[in-house]
Amino acid sequence: MITRAAVALEAGKPLVVMDVNLEGPKAGEVLIEVKATGLCHTDEFTRSGDDPEGAFPAILGHEGAGIVIEVGEGVTSLEVGDHVIPLYTPECRECEYCLNPKTNLCQKIRATQGAGVMPDGTTRFSMMDGTPILHYMGCSTFANHTVMPEIALAKVRKDAPFDKICYIGCGVTTGIGAVINTAKVEIGSTAIVFGLGGIGLNVVQGLRLAGADQIVGVDLNDSKVEMATKFGMTDFVNPNDVDGDLVEHLVNVTGGGADYTFDATGNVNVMRTALESAHKGWGESVIIGVAPAGAEISTRPFQLVTGRVWRGTAFGGASGRTDVPKIVDWYMDGKIEIDPMITHKLSLDEINEGFELMHQGKSIRAVVEF
Amino acid sequence: MITRAAVALEAGKPLVVMDVNLEGPKAGEVLIEVKATGLCHTDEFTRSGDDPEGAFPAILGHEGAGIVIEVGEGVTSLEVGDHVIPLYTPECRECEYCLNPKTNLCQKIRATQGAGVMPDGTTRFSMMDGTPILHYMGCSTFANHTVMPEIALAKVRKDAPFDKICYIGCGVTTGIGAVINTAKVEIGSTAIVFGLGGIGLNVVQGLRLAGADQIVGVDLNDSKVEMATKFGMTDFVNPNDVDGDLVEHLVNVTGGGADYTFDATGNVNVMRTALESAHKGWGESVIIGVAPAGAEISTRPFQLVTGRVWRGTAFGGASGRTDVPKIVDWYMDGKIEIDPMITHKLSLDEINEGFELMHQGKSIRAVVEF
Ligand SMILES: NC(=O)c1ccc[n+]([C@@H]2O[C@H](COP(=O)([O-])OP(=O)(O)OC[C@H]3O[C@@H](n4cnc5c(N)ncnc54)[C@H](O)[C@@H]3O)[C@@H](O)[C@H]2O)c1
Ligand SMILES: NC(=O)c1ccc[n+]([C@@H]2O[C@H](COP(=O)([O-])OP(=O)(O)OC[C@H]3O[C@@H](n4cnc5c(N)ncnc54)[C@H](O)[C@@H]3O)[C@@H](O)[C@H]2O)c1
Ligand SMILES: [Zn+2]
Ligand SMILES: [Zn+2]
Ligand SMILES: [Zn+2]
Ligand SMILES: [Zn+2]
Repeated sequence: MITRAAVALEAGKPLVVMDVNLEGPKAGEVLIEVKATGLCHTDEFTRSGDDPEGAFPAILGHEGAGIVIEVGEGVTSLEVGDHVIPLYTPECRECEYCLNPKTNLCQKIRATQGAGVMPDGTTRFSMMDGTPILHYMGCSTFANHTVMPEIALAKVRKDAPFDKICYIGCGVTTGIGAVINTAKVEIGSTAIVFGLGGIGLNVVQGLRLAGADQIVGVDLNDSKVEMATKFGMTDFVNPNDVDGDLVEHLVNVTGGGADYTFDATGNVNVMRTALESAHKGWGESVIIGVAPAGAEISTRPFQLVTGRVWRGTAFGGASGRTDVPKIVDWYMDGKIEIDPMITHKLSLDEINEGFELMHQGKSIRAVVEF
Repeated sequence: MITRAAVALEAGKPLVVMDVNLEGPKAGEVLIEVKATGLCHTDEFTRSGDDPEGAFPAILGHEGAGIVIEVGEGVTSLEVGDHVIPLYTPECRECEYCLNPKTNLCQKIRATQGAGVMPDGTTRFSMMDGTPILHYMGCSTFANHTVMPEIALAKVRKDAPFDKICYIGCGVTTGIGAVINTAKVEIGSTAIVFGLGGIGLNVVQGLRLAGADQIVGVDLNDSKVEMATKFGMTDFVNPNDVDGDLVEHLVNVTGGGADYTFDATGNVNVMRTALESAHKGWGESVIIGVAPAGAEISTRPFQLVTGRVWRGTAFGGASGRTDVPKIVDWYMDGKIEIDPMITHKLSLDEINEGFELMHQGKSIRAVVEF
């Protein structure tokens, strides 16, 4: 079939919206019609050329929602008409990783996914002249239709709006999951969230959901305060307004350091501050942000020997096929909010404007609706 | 009273054995006769002058065992004749830290202990001319008698030999506790222990006790193999014999990385290797070694985002008054071994020879018997 997609032809160039060929699903694969997709920093990381593993031409996008149009041979868990959210972290339920409750990093199709191809080693997308186009993070949601492995699709309820739940495909789950699955925050905890963007706001609402008593937000941009407060932030610190040492200030604000801290900036200096402002004896710090290639975190080992714990999280520690449908329910039940974070709606033709809004810090989430 | 002690008069100088004055116990304090004391690297760190917080003159030593001679006013948990192990990490059972099951870092007397004085701010030791002598780590076991707070003494059974169980006051508990309390290693785990000295050997036997399936030891010194094998090591790696990348080699040896890794060297480069040779998705690395002042650990945050966890441990996460008597029982019941690790016995007058043996790597533990 022919579908419409925004193609990243070269690193650092704007996406080009064009018709592309899409082959039907092979065994174990599913063809979906993408109804909406969010624009995430990770897409921009690759588009811009900053991602050392980025390969082109490719169809980016990994934060989508859509409908099953056709299922390949042997597909048993999905049928035509099902509503689905694509998973860049699949859940095969049979690999060593899926069977270990300590991790969500299913390795079943890791190698081919990283290489921009389907599990059989080939790509379903191509240009009108036949040039193959790579898949991206196993999703490629910047296309009106895409093909995905069955194990990388979460089946969700049919009454949930695509233009909101697409955000659960990355940002919402990453932020809330970091709190619930990775840190396992307890009721009454104190926490600090560094970075109040699309991920940080979801960490904030995850903390509210988990019953945290104090939720300190840290951001260089004062304009983030209003929204973060709406999502549960109790205290705000702008590092530019702090005289003296930021760690010391945060330790004071939290009465000795926070039980849990989260980096949602991707800045390695912030990651260090996050660790060191965790409470002596038991404070845990979770890295969510993705650092520039080659950047390193550091601290004195004494910080760990005196009881702090340093962790990271990918896709919020969520096992997608199991957890994503639950998060959709939480949204539909009003336990979490998404609508105010979708600040911009675009058509596919306007997708490059979405990246500009991101750069200008004007959007929390821009969503493309097909 | 007058007692005999090895006094650290100045940084970098040998200890001087001399008679010193010792005041009796004040309220909440206990006078003990020290029967045996081990020599630990931490004593040497301070004696040598490497410890930026070292203060002199002081009576070092923190790995002892002895008998209660006199109790001060209000002491209720101990009586004359009780056998005790001094605790450099006390357990008051009422501070915020003692009441939090996630930590063992009782803060009740932290400030005075760090300053080398008893909780009332004064020292019990002095020279014959009246010059005060500081306490060390709240213990000062390089003296035939010492005064300690009640909350810093673990009461242990009377049939246990002092010259062996003194080692439980630091090394044994630190190594075994890192496995049991901090990492909480499960049956069937794989593990790597970096450094097979006085701490590392106890990590190895802690892993055996916890039912680990594979226990890889890493040391630059091949002479450590025999003893480590006796304590449960299943594989040995000398980094000098590895062509190419050590992390890659260790990941191969453990079939993908170890479930748990432990640094018992104090070298920050080894700490990084330990983290990076932990298994993707769930591997945890525990820092036990004490790094030189100012040294920093670093790694790419990607190591944590892909599921590794970085922790540290102090006194093996043990709550001393509760856990140390149990470890003494394990020794008496033959669940753990201590005797082969006590490689040298000295008199107090020979104490400086003990530090030389340590420097030459000839001793695992040298113990001074009074
Ligand atoms: N681990 C994962 O699975 C995962 C998934 C998605 C995104 N991410 C990463 O999460 C990070 C955040 O993404 P986002 O979409 O929220 O970005 P964003 O740009 O929307 O938000 C970042 C926020 O951090 C603030 N900030 C920047 N530097 C700061 C500093 N030094 N101190 C305090 N605040 C600072 C900015 O003002 C902004 O509000 C990115 O690195 C992204 O790549 C990780
Ligand atoms: N966290 C705590 O509560 C605590 C308590 C006591 C001691 N410690 C620390 O634990 C560390 C170990 O103490 P120890 O008494 O076992 O020392 P040790 O000297 O007996 O043993 C260290 C071992 O490490 C080996 N080693 C050194 N460099 C190495 C390298 N690059 N690679 C591999 N092996 C290497 C040495 O050959 C030696 O066998 C020290 O730093 C000590 O200060 C920590
Ligand atoms: Zn994303
Ligand atoms: Zn799997
Ligand atoms: Zn010690
Ligand atoms: Zn306490």
